[in-house]
Amino acid sequence: MTTILPIAISLGDPAGVGPELIAAAWDRREAERLPPFFAVGNRDLIEAAARSRGLTIPVVAIAAPDEAAAVFPHALPVLDVGTAPCTPGQPDDAGAALALRALEVATSLVKQGAAAALVTGPIAKSRLARIGFTQPGQTEFVAEACGITPENAVMMLAGPHLRVVPITVHVALRDVPFLLSADLIRTRSMIAAAALIRDFGIVHPRLAVAALNPHAGEDGRMGTEDRDVIVPAVAALQAAGIDARGPLPADTMFHSEARATYDAAICMYHDQALIPIKVLDFDEGVNVTLGLPIIRTSPDHGTAFAIAGTGAARPGATIAAIRMAGQCAARRAGAA
Amino acid sequence: MTTILPIAISLGDPAGVGPELIAAAWDRREAERLPPFFAVGNRDLIEAAARSRGLTIPVVAIAAPDEAAAVFPHALPVLDVGTAPCTPGQPDDAGAALALRALEVATSLVKQGAAAALVTGPIAKSRLARIGFTQPGQTEFVAEACGITPENAVMMLAGPHLRVVPITVHVALRDVPFLLSADLIRTRSMIAAAALIRDFGIVHPRLAVAALNPHAGEDGRMGTEDRDVIVPAVAALQAAGIDARGPLPADTMFHSEARATYDAAICMYHDQALIPIKVLDFDEGVNVTLGLPIIRTSPDHGTAFAIAGTGAARPGATIAAIRMAGQCAARRAGAA
Repeated sequence: MTTILPIAISLGDPAGVGPELIAAAWDRREAERLPPFFAVGNRDLIEAAARSRGLTIPVVAIAAPDEAAAVFPHALPVLDVGTAPCTPGQPDDAGAALALRALEVATSLVKQGAAAALVTGPIAKSRLARIGFTQPGQTEFVAEACGITPENAVMMLAGPHLRVVPITVHVALRDVPFLLSADLIRTRSMIAAAALIRDFGIVHPRLAVAALNPHAGEDGRMGTEDRDVIVPAVAALQAAGIDARGPLPADTMFHSEARATYDAAICMYHDQALIPIKVLDFDEGVNVTLGLPIIRTSPDHGTAFAIAGTGAARPGATIAAIRMAGQCAARRAGAA
Repeated sequence: MTTILPIAISLGDPAGVGPELIAAAWDRREAERLPPFFAVGNRDLIEAAARSRGLTIPVVAIAAPDEAAAVFPHALPVLDVGTAPCTPGQPDDAGAALALRALEVATSLVKQGAAAALVTGPIAKSRLARIGFTQPGQTEFVAEACGITPENAVMMLAGPHLRVVPITVHVALRDVPFLLSADLIRTRSMIAAAALIRDFGIVHPRLAVAALNPHAGEDGRMGTEDRDVIVPAVAALQAAGIDARGPLPADTMFHSEARATYDAAICMYHDQALIPIKVLDFDEGVNVTLGLPIIRTSPDHGTAFAIAGTGAARPGATIAAIRMAGQCAARRAGAA
């Protein structure tokens, strides 16, 4: 029998919704059939965040991840890594430092094999930058901690209805056509296909590759990138044995009949990927980093400082991120 | 009592799905409570197209639009404007010429006040171009026939869940940032707001203006157009008394809670508008041309040559286009 290790969840910015959503997820662990997890952060802050939304749950400090499984059925286990005075909705440098410390420790524990997977709570990038964090975001931090270049760490957003992989992400729209290359599309799509096999149990992943231009450019009449960049990328994927189709007009890729024909949509830019998944899976979108030696997921939302402590934040995405991390971990453990 | 005139529907390319979908819509006129309409095209072609999908319906030639209302309850009225030998799925120049003639006559009848509104069947632009049609599409043709410059004819796509107005439409994505201006966004949004009042009965239309860049550009860190072009456009709309908000990050504009806060989304480019509406309203999307002296709608799909004559084409969008044309016509008639 394979023992599944607990999942490590980093706190996120303590002034955001991260801590309260960890508590809310634990509170629904049985109804949602969640695998055992522990938070990396600060016990008192999580307990206070839980109370702020009317949850009086037992929160227990643990000294090491191997204590989590025994605690989890009865209390939310938390590995303390520091503290910070904290007011919901009012981020500060001390809170950012605690969020960073939690991310560092949680990542390290998963890398060491003390936890099965990493779920990262939401942080404020601009806040972290103020205290010397040099990475663009948590994805790049985790990639580098694992010895993977950021270009080879691929973001996928996954929900109950759709999986999307944006080839370019946080860049100006006007730069997208110049950043795309057949090699970039091919490389990231190969990483996505490999992860769909290994972590999602899809034996023969089918990739639908979106066009950049309206109507896939109509043979160059509305933009040349589809013909000159995406067609060769799809050909290269097919030559490598990947079941890839495209470039497909993006507007007709995402209704239910079209979605039934593929396992992941490879998209060219942020909104092309995020518009459809947020229409379909707004409260349940999970951000998964593909191509890493570890499993890493996160809820697909930000710190939501404006509603932190009000009880309005919904835990669906955190629950989905924990569940998906557990499923991916079970597949890797089963295959090992 | 106001007498509602019949609606004129142009045939579309006779080798496409247009003729059979007119027949299918008539066949469901009672269940769908459709207003009286007549086709402009060719009686025999429509009857044959109906039979190709297993519909044996009475199709009656009329000599003028004023015969349509009496015929409509018992038979599909068709105004003959020519003929063409026609095989479904095999477009040719004679069919394109008939499609163009039908469009010309139907537009003229609506302009003259002999019909209440224009619904256009799907045509193949590249086919029409071969026979000397110089307009980019039917929208521009209808606008010019009405004496409106194409820039002031604004496309809106409307379905049961969403209305979207793309500011730029059939252009390469790389050209979009350079085509956008505060003046263009303001002008088209004003036309949209006026049409929502006049034709859709929305007393105080609320417009949600999408950002161009991810996260609305994050104050210029991911593109400057949101700050430099869209912010001033929204300010100008507000100064003109329009309830407009934005630029809003496009990925979080289209889930159900967000949609409840506006009547139309003003989008910056084709896929930003069409991805969400085709996710939500794939079979019921209607293309409405705003800013014209006449009412013009069309089903939001193409000729679908590949499935013409097979019975696979679904009439939902044609039915929705007829219904919406009738509703808009009733509002104008009621206000007159």
